[in-house]
Amino acid sequence: MQYTISALVTNKSGVLTKISGLFSRRGFNIESLSVCKTEDPLLSRMTIVLNGDDYTLGQMVKQMDKLIEVKKIMPAVENESIYRELLLIKVSAAPEIRNQIVEIKEIYKAKVVDLSPNSMILELTGEPNKLDGFIRVIQPYGILEMARTGVTAISRGEKCIKDVVSYEEFIL
Amino acid sequence: MQYTISALVTNKSGVLTKISGLFSRRGFNIESLSVCKTEDPLLSRMTIVLNGDDYTLGQMVKQMDKLIEVKKIMPAVENESIYRELLLIKVSAAPEIRNQIVEIKEIYKAKVVDLSPNSMILELTGEPNKLDGFIRVIQPYGILEMARTGVTAISRGEKCIKDVVSYEEFIL
Repeated sequence: MQYTISALVTNKSGVLTKISGLFSRRGFNIESLSVCKTEDPLLSRMTIVLNGDDYTLGQMVKQMDKLIEVKKIMPAVENESIYRELLLIKVSAAPEIRNQIVEIKEIYKAKVVDLSPNSMILELTGEPNKLDGFIRVIQPYGILEMARTGVTAISRGEKCIKDVVSYEEFIL
Repeated sequence: MQYTISALVTNKSGVLTKISGLFSRRGFNIESLSVCKTEDPLLSRMTIVLNGDDYTLGQMVKQMDKLIEVKKIMPAVENESIYRELLLIKVSAAPEIRNQIVEIKEIYKAKVVDLSPNSMILELTGEPNKLDGFIRVIQPYGILEMARTGVTAISRGEKCIKDVVSYEEFIL
């Protein structure tokens, strides 16, 4: 099972090391992680995707919440959250098969962002599952390289991460 | 000045802690970081954006390259790279001003991904500058929360990060 955790953390050197250390000390490998500034210059937002069970999730959220640098923490609730990820993928595309790749691109509503005589860079945005599906279809043509941002998530409706009082409302 | 570093690293627990530790020990704050799996299950790809000068960049790339877990490293070359980032932003949107936000959304080619009686979630993809511009225009309406993935980057043309022999070809 995959879990997504969003956290507002102080925008300071060392915070990422502390948080990633929590995971590595327990031998948990993070599936994806992204961290970036927010509308508040003092805070960064971190999104972590990890594989595990409810117990793992509960433990990690509890541990993270203990860090003074973690201001708010909120595990994503599956049907009440929007998950998005961005993919840049460079595919081998000789002129005679280029039309096949363009066809796939149109089905997935991807964009061509670069073209060379024998390759193409495509950009695709969506839920992680959609990206995985696209990669599977493109793979036979030859993936030269790819870069995914990792998932970011936001809860539907008006409730915000800033309004979270305690992570306990999300953890069983 | 902002620099973007892409790296292929072993997909193992602890790698992120090591790399972020390199930055925090020197007091460098990372502007954004994203890490995610690649087409090769043994490797993850990490994209780090940092503020600094050429010297800082050179130092960090050199230090990262020394880690056994860092298989390939490549600072992005500005005009030869594609940079993309994804933004999810929840904006306060009472029914009487909703049309104004929809207008901005159309100019930026953003997407509405959720709607509540008094708020809206928009999704936007593009270069970081474009996202910054959009945020500035949306800010007066009231940003409830936002989540950015951080930048991911890929070099134009057929050359790939896997083909990099040494980071020295990119560092002055």
